[in-house]
Amino acid sequence: MLLKVKDVDEVLDIIENNFIPGGKKTERISLLESLGRVLAEDVAAGCDIPPFNRSVVDGYAVRSRNTFGANEAMPAILKYSGEVEIGRRPPGGIRDGECMYVPTGGMLPPGGDAAVMIEDTERLNENEIAVYKPVSPLENTMGKGEDVRAGDCVVRKNTLIRPQHIGVLSSIGLKDVTVFPKPRVSVISTGDEIVEPGGELQPGQIWDINTYALASSVAEDGGCPVPEGIVKDRKDLLREKISAAVTESDVVLISGGSSAGFRDYTASIIDELDSPGVLVHGISIKPGKPTIIGKVDGKPVIGMPGQPVSSLVVYKVIVSPLIRRLAGYPPAHPAMVKAFCSENYASAAGREEYLMVNLEEREGRLYAFPVHGKSGMITTISSAAGMVKIHRNKEGLYREEEVAVILL
Amino acid sequence: MLLKVKDVDEVLDIIENNFIPGGKKTERISLLESLGRVLAEDVAAGCDIPPFNRSVVDGYAVRSRNTFGANEAMPAILKYSGEVEIGRRPPGGIRDGECMYVPTGGMLPPGGDAAVMIEDTERLNENEIAVYKPVSPLENTMGKGEDVRAGDCVVRKNTLIRPQHIGVLSSIGLKDVTVFPKPRVSVISTGDEIVEPGGELQPGQIWDINTYALASSVAEDGGCPVPEGIVKDRKDLLREKISAAVTESDVVLISGGSSAGFRDYTASIIDELDSPGVLVHGISIKPGKPTIIGKVDGKPVIGMPGQPVSSLVVYKVIVSPLIRRLAGYPPAHPAMVKAFCSENYASAAGREEYLMVNLEEREGRLYAFPVHGKSGMITTISSAAGMVKIHRNKEGLYREEEVAVILL
Repeated sequence: MLLKVKDVDEVLDIIENNFIPGGKKTERISLLESLGRVLAEDVAAGCDIPPFNRSVVDGYAVRSRNTFGANEAMPAILKYSGEVEIGRRPPGGIRDGECMYVPTGGMLPPGGDAAVMIEDTERLNENEIAVYKPVSPLENTMGKGEDVRAGDCVVRKNTLIRPQHIGVLSSIGLKDVTVFPKPRVSVISTGDEIVEPGGELQPGQIWDINTYALASSVAEDGGCPVPEGIVKDRKDLLREKISAAVTESDVVLISGGSSAGFRDYTASIIDELDSPGVLVHGISIKPGKPTIIGKVDGKPVIGMPGQPVSSLVVYKVIVSPLIRRLAGYPPAHPAMVKAFCSENYASAAGREEYLMVNLEEREGRLYAFPVHGKSGMITTISSAAGMVKIHRNKEGLYREEEVAVILL
Repeated sequence: MLLKVKDVDEVLDIIENNFIPGGKKTERISLLESLGRVLAEDVAAGCDIPPFNRSVVDGYAVRSRNTFGANEAMPAILKYSGEVEIGRRPPGGIRDGECMYVPTGGMLPPGGDAAVMIEDTERLNENEIAVYKPVSPLENTMGKGEDVRAGDCVVRKNTLIRPQHIGVLSSIGLKDVTVFPKPRVSVISTGDEIVEPGGELQPGQIWDINTYALASSVAEDGGCPVPEGIVKDRKDLLREKISAAVTESDVVLISGGSSAGFRDYTASIIDELDSPGVLVHGISIKPGKPTIIGKVDGKPVIGMPGQPVSSLVVYKVIVSPLIRRLAGYPPAHPAMVKAFCSENYASAAGREEYLMVNLEEREGRLYAFPVHGKSGMITTISSAAGMVKIHRNKEGLYREEEVAVILL
């Protein structure tokens, strides 16, 4: 099947329309391990929090009306009737004219409706406390259920769990939470010349880059990378590997094998495994044109460029939004800075180009310097501070033109 | 010892001057697990990358001067002398007037100095190839060492490892990397009323929040949280726990027990364990005033407020920069948005206040609405979109005043 090269926006639409997150699978994990996961249910409180009226100061639990009108010259004198221990039921209630010592967080005794701070009192003798300042009803206390009422939803489904959510979930006594599983993303490298790092190189061989760069990118986006190793340039082997990966994972990334060369098996395998199979064959993006997007059993199977820089750019622009959406993550908002272009830079109109740049201040202005180097050099991206997107209607950048640099 | 309440800036200076990251400990981990870790050494390449001259196109390796002047009408006719297989040593070299098929990434045969794209050639017969376009020396090739030269530093010590770094590290054949260990941060909760989530509450008890909220905050900042459980309000138990934690961890956080109440053991334990011990006792921040910062065996031992919201605010403002620095992380740049204040809000001058807010658009303007609720209610922070810092020289916010909202 012959497919026309498509614009980036068109490709993002195709991905959005074809791959809708909707797995009903969930998993139960420990609250302490839930940071960065996505909640799979509305969580409601099983009881009121706090579960009892409590004092928020060290002082005396009182009936507030017994303190009305009290001042330095005319304190209210109350009968001391014992002490509330923190974490325990009060030894009794208080009646009119009585008070009971209560520490911060202690349970307010029955009959008490407010707490006087200890600084505003004086112990006169074993039985009497002078109160020098009036308190109004509920003053210096937190009422049962004032923070959370039983049945209140405290964290909504689809929330990306942060420390403050973990805090409120523990406050209602949860030890475990139900989250969506991370999308499993198989990463397959292909090529007879590719060798696993750590191994010895023979003449003509190079070490695998894409498994490592792509797997870690997936992890950053909330996915669970599944490195599938290196597959030799044989269609039967690759077909077997892709087939198995589609069964086990939610997304399959295959790097290499998507140039126009005769080893281009990826597209035909995708078409053989399902129909329509290949949805996109070629994207008008530089670097990254020879990218294939297919659908097998409803799952995205993506042929990434073999060149590592192209592969990383395609990952960031095309694949990352997909993985984040499947993970239930919000869209990424990469940090950007404005800078002036250090030189004229020519670019062909009709495709979106990503130019790696470094940043340097010159006479108080921030400049973006294009990173020179042949396409495919991994150091052009590993040493860059950021990248500049050149819109497909533009034919390059002018010296001194202001550009937005997407920090890497 | 009596210590004056200190300003936030003063406290940050004290922390910076007292706790200088400088551990010489390192650990060796797998490259695939190094995302988000901090490199502990300059990494230099052991060999040239690529390790050989390679073609970056599918086509024919040639001597460039044999193609000079070639065009559609007058192609250069070269003798076909075999094929380079990807990942293998070429079957031989090429001499004047010869060419050899080479795939993208294939090794350039000895004698060849450029590659002609297959689109610019035609196979005339078994022995002859027509070249319709000249190539200059090195055209369509990448030279040995052109990406990385043996001995070049590819990633610097102290780099926070991102996918592009993992890519370049694998390109030079590394399987493992040397990183700084994550700072271990013990988190101790204190209080007779505190119960572990999952357990049953007795009258007067509440579930632990701070262990969970603080441990996950530590993890977010690149630290390794060590939850130490709940310690009862007994000085001997707390002293034993702090003592053990100082030995095992790099930082100790103790929550609760730092109010002015009679259970305030934390400060005296710190002073007993080392001298000077307590460096800061009270910070002019709201919420979060009753915070203690001590130094034991050169390590930070921090008494956090027991109120969970105070504790999280103190963590963000005071503790997070410390943990990130010890982890080798760059300073956090939390996302901020500008909004207009929805109402007047009074605040006492002389202390820095953090006000939880929600965001809502009204008639095209973004407004920050203060979250109402008593201090200490965990829902004020778990339901907030962000917080507004009110400078200590200000006495509050005016309605319609523009404020910067730090997103949570």
